Amino acid sequence: MSQLTHSEITALFLALGLLLASARVLGELARAMNLPAVLGEISAGILWGPTVFGTFFPQWSVYLFPVSGGGALAFDGLITLAITLFLLVAGMEIDLSTVWRQGKVALYVALLGMFFPFVFGFLVGWWMPGILGYQEGTHHLAFALFMATVLSISALPIIAKILMDLNIYRSDMGVTIIAAAVFNDLLGWLVFAMVLGMLGVGQMMPLGYTIAMTLVFVLVMIILMPPVLNHVLPWVQAHSSWPGGILGFALSFCLLAAAFTEWIGIHAIFGSFLAGVALGDSKHLNERTRTTIEQFVSFIFAPLFFASIGLRVNFVENFNLWLTLVVLVLAMSGKIVGSTLGARLGGLPARESLGIGFGMSAQGTMGIILGVLALQFELISQEVFVSLVVMALVTSLLSGPMMQKVLRLKKARRFVNFLPSQGFVLQLTSTDRWSAIHELSTLASPLVDKKAEEITRAVYAREKMMATGIGHGVAVPHARIPGLTEPLVMVGLSRAGIDFDAPDAALAKVVFLILSPEEDNGLQLEILADIAATFKVKEIKEKIIGVNSYVEFLAMVRTAHGS
Amino acid sequence: MSQLTHSEITALFLALGLLLASARVLGELARAMNLPAVLGEISAGILWGPTVFGTFFPQWSVYLFPVSGGGALAFDGLITLAITLFLLVAGMEIDLSTVWRQGKVALYVALLGMFFPFVFGFLVGWWMPGILGYQEGTHHLAFALFMATVLSISALPIIAKILMDLNIYRSDMGVTIIAAAVFNDLLGWLVFAMVLGMLGVGQMMPLGYTIAMTLVFVLVMIILMPPVLNHVLPWVQAHSSWPGGILGFALSFCLLAAAFTEWIGIHAIFGSFLAGVALGDSKHLNERTRTTIEQFVSFIFAPLFFASIGLRVNFVENFNLWLTLVVLVLAMSGKIVGSTLGARLGGLPARESLGIGFGMSAQGTMGIILGVLALQFELISQEVFVSLVVMALVTSLLSGPMMQKVLRLKKARRFVNFLPSQGFVLQLTSTDRWSAIHELSTLASPLVDKKAEEITRAVYAREKMMATGIGHGVAVPHARIPGLTEPLVMVGLSRAGIDFDAPDAALAKVVFLILSPEEDNGLQLEILADIAATFKVKEIKEKIIGVNSYVEFLAMVRTAHGS
Repeated sequence: MSQLTHSEITALFLALGLLLASARVLGELARAMNLPAVLGEISAGILWGPTVFGTFFPQWSVYLFPVSGGGALAFDGLITLAITLFLLVAGMEIDLSTVWRQGKVALYVALLGMFFPFVFGFLVGWWMPGILGYQEGTHHLAFALFMATVLSISALPIIAKILMDLNIYRSDMGVTIIAAAVFNDLLGWLVFAMVLGMLGVGQMMPLGYTIAMTLVFVLVMIILMPPVLNHVLPWVQAHSSWPGGILGFALSFCLLAAAFTEWIGIHAIFGSFLAGVALGDSKHLNERTRTTIEQFVSFIFAPLFFASIGLRVNFVENFNLWLTLVVLVLAMSGKIVGSTLGARLGGLPARESLGIGFGMSAQGTMGIILGVLALQFELISQEVFVSLVVMALVTSLLSGPMMQKVLRLKKARRFVNFLPSQGFVLQLTSTDRWSAIHELSTLASPLVDKKAEEITRAVYAREKMMATGIGHGVAVPHARIPGLTEPLVMVGLSRAGIDFDAPDAALAKVVFLILSPEEDNGLQLEILADIAATFKVKEIKEKIIGVNSYVEFLAMVRTAHGS
Repeated sequence: MSQLTHSEITALFLALGLLLASARVLGELARAMNLPAVLGEISAGILWGPTVFGTFFPQWSVYLFPVSGGGALAFDGLITLAITLFLLVAGMEIDLSTVWRQGKVALYVALLGMFFPFVFGFLVGWWMPGILGYQEGTHHLAFALFMATVLSISALPIIAKILMDLNIYRSDMGVTIIAAAVFNDLLGWLVFAMVLGMLGVGQMMPLGYTIAMTLVFVLVMIILMPPVLNHVLPWVQAHSSWPGGILGFALSFCLLAAAFTEWIGIHAIFGSFLAGVALGDSKHLNERTRTTIEQFVSFIFAPLFFASIGLRVNFVENFNLWLTLVVLVLAMSGKIVGSTLGARLGGLPARESLGIGFGMSAQGTMGIILGVLALQFELISQEVFVSLVVMALVTSLLSGPMMQKVLRLKKARRFVNFLPSQGFVLQLTSTDRWSAIHELSTLASPLVDKKAEEITRAVYAREKMMATGIGHGVAVPHARIPGLTEPLVMVGLSRAGIDFDAPDAALAKVVFLILSPEEDNGLQLEILADIAATFKVKEIKEKIIGVNSYVEFLAMVRTAHGS
């Protein structure tokens, strides 16, 4: 039995560990900079890939990320599994009723968003193949069709991740974009299957079969399966141990569906995506089970896959600026114009249509998968491949921020964002609310560069209008301070408790002091609402009282919403 | 870049899907037969392996479970990852303070439990190598040492799984067994590294280094790391999104530790196990995060690994009865006698010592990993390898049931085990408690073959002593019925509610009727306690009232404890 060698296993685990750690760290950095996390994750791969790490430490690079041999194959298998499982999760999040409601718009977006770049790509590939890197001697029609396909196919996994990162995945617009991307990519794969047929390679069954089976499979998964699963899932849960039974069922269902779509000649990810759609639609899939799958896949497998994109190629060596620019302009202009137009025709307002256009503009992940095959069959050169990968990265980089800008999305502002470590008081010395306010105000004074008296006076004035004990042992004295540019949140703990005249008469053990700029009224309310929501969970107060440091306090608050 | 072909990916996903589904199904069957689930999981592999499926459908078998090529390597990589992650989970469950408390006993068990089979194996391998399948021309001393090692090494993953299946993993005895097994297996790997050194193969560094690094690594992980992680984990949680940050951290930590132990010449699983011990010891590892990792790994990765054991070899073709018996007797007798003796010397009572002896007797998983290497270097023959695998299976099969017998472990009896589909009444027609009892008794009558009047009279008598409304909308009228051999549980739902004089005055919407045999008093209490515990969770009552069938009722109840 072929097995990985001792040294291959060592390298594989080391590579996975380093890749995961750096993908998560850069993903967090991207979030902190208000960008989709996926950008950080792809960047981690570029750093570890041939472009940077491989250039400076070629031997180490070959050891950690081998391009051939057992280690490379095992890595490829894992990454393929990772992307397949990620699409299962993406599918589980889809609400079919929204798809039916948004179906018409999605169809317009998919068709026009595919048509424009396809035509652009085909015309250039056919009339001016040279500027797309055509090599004499290869099948000309196949080349033109291939370029048309890679320029018009979208990047389902990236699009899903960006929409999740922006928190609009389950919105009407998110579903429209995803439905359009699925339809777009299914069409793209069917055209690609045709191209492979022209080259006389790769294909496992006649094209007509592939198309027919795809159609049947999609219909079975979105129409027949949901009601069937609504009966099967309770049966599985009733007759097996929990949660082993249902987890095993969901995952095997996904793997078998993935095997099926891979077999009929489109990619495995379509199978797992549609399996996810069918499973996720059932109200009998327990919330707990969903969460387990989603968390493990989204935070372990997905970062590994996205990082692996950056590993594939040296972005400096095979870089051809002119070629890349042509590819990029053709792909983006065609996709954005086509998709926006489609959304307008579907009846959406201009701003939203443009948002959809940018949402659809993340391209290339699928193109890279196609490109790898095209490279193997020598239909395209290394340079064309690099231009496709760069196009994938640039479009993925732009898509999220452009959507944020066009749709004016704001990141939810949490109170902890305005709570510095000096703003944390482990034990208040005061025992009544007036002196507690004074104590916190005095400590806040140097942080906002205002006199302690001025702060105290403002907060007292507010407190006298109405006491700020909000119950559950929390009090939130606050005031607007003229001249502040940013809000400041202070927090003091009191084991004995301080009477803030709360409606439930409970003593306040956690006292916040919230100082906000005079202008931004919305922000103060947002912070107050966030504190109230955080402390609605009963257990958190007892835990908060037990913390020993600012870091532990932050950790408690950040994990509160999910625990 | 080496990549899996289209056909290899199809086969890989198909194989994983089938293997996972059948492992889970047979695992559930084993549980239903009161056996550890792992036996079912291994059996699934034997069915899909060369022994059964491969014999009848050789071409399909080669396609699904290739023994060489890219698919085999990718499968091997995944399985290695699976077992490594399972050991992370096993490590996370370990409570270090129990290890320190049980350390002395564990050391005795490990040393004696290793010494006896090692000496048996070495003596037979040295003086009568023929009966252990020695082939002329191979290194005699290396052969004897190898046989001594495989006969004395235990099966850490299987032992952990059996203890979890029996629900005694976190007990003092469970921890003693696991600590002894870890120590035992670490020693075994060090001896094996020595054997490889004799053959002049496989080793990456001098033996002295391996031993020294192992010692340092163990000490770092169990002494230095826990306090360090107690500071690092809150920091990670405070400065990253939740739960992505902490999940990513835990998994990368595990992968890097696994890479390290693989690199120093012992197996990757020791690294991930000890990483799990260090992580699990921190009170800052959120319960929710633990659960996500544990569920995904225990119910997806672990079954895949255990099933893969059965895939490795044709158990019929290379089977040598005599050789297998010798191997089995030497391994089991030595291990059981030695471990039991060790536990006695450590001061444990006889029954518990014997339990530990049987607990340690699951052998061979590690032996199989060693055997694969020994086979590669032609130190042993196919027949010896098969005898080792059979020994692994037989000891794994016997260990759990023998422990259950010796320790008199009983499976927790849940009320649903005694609730047949005919015992479920979707809507009671009665509106007061006496007629509700009569209604359920009448329906119960044919199921227990007793007159309805007799049942009603007995339950009325009990009900008159004290009303059985236990609050939260649940009532549990019950009685012992002479002549019953098994308990019977009936349940009737009432949307309007029936007054059962509950302490909280709430009307009963879920009415159980519990009939138990006259003798077994404990059983009735167990069932009552189980019902009370199940309905303590507030949300479940509302959900129960909404069910439409027996199957949905079962599904709700079974998933209640974890949701």
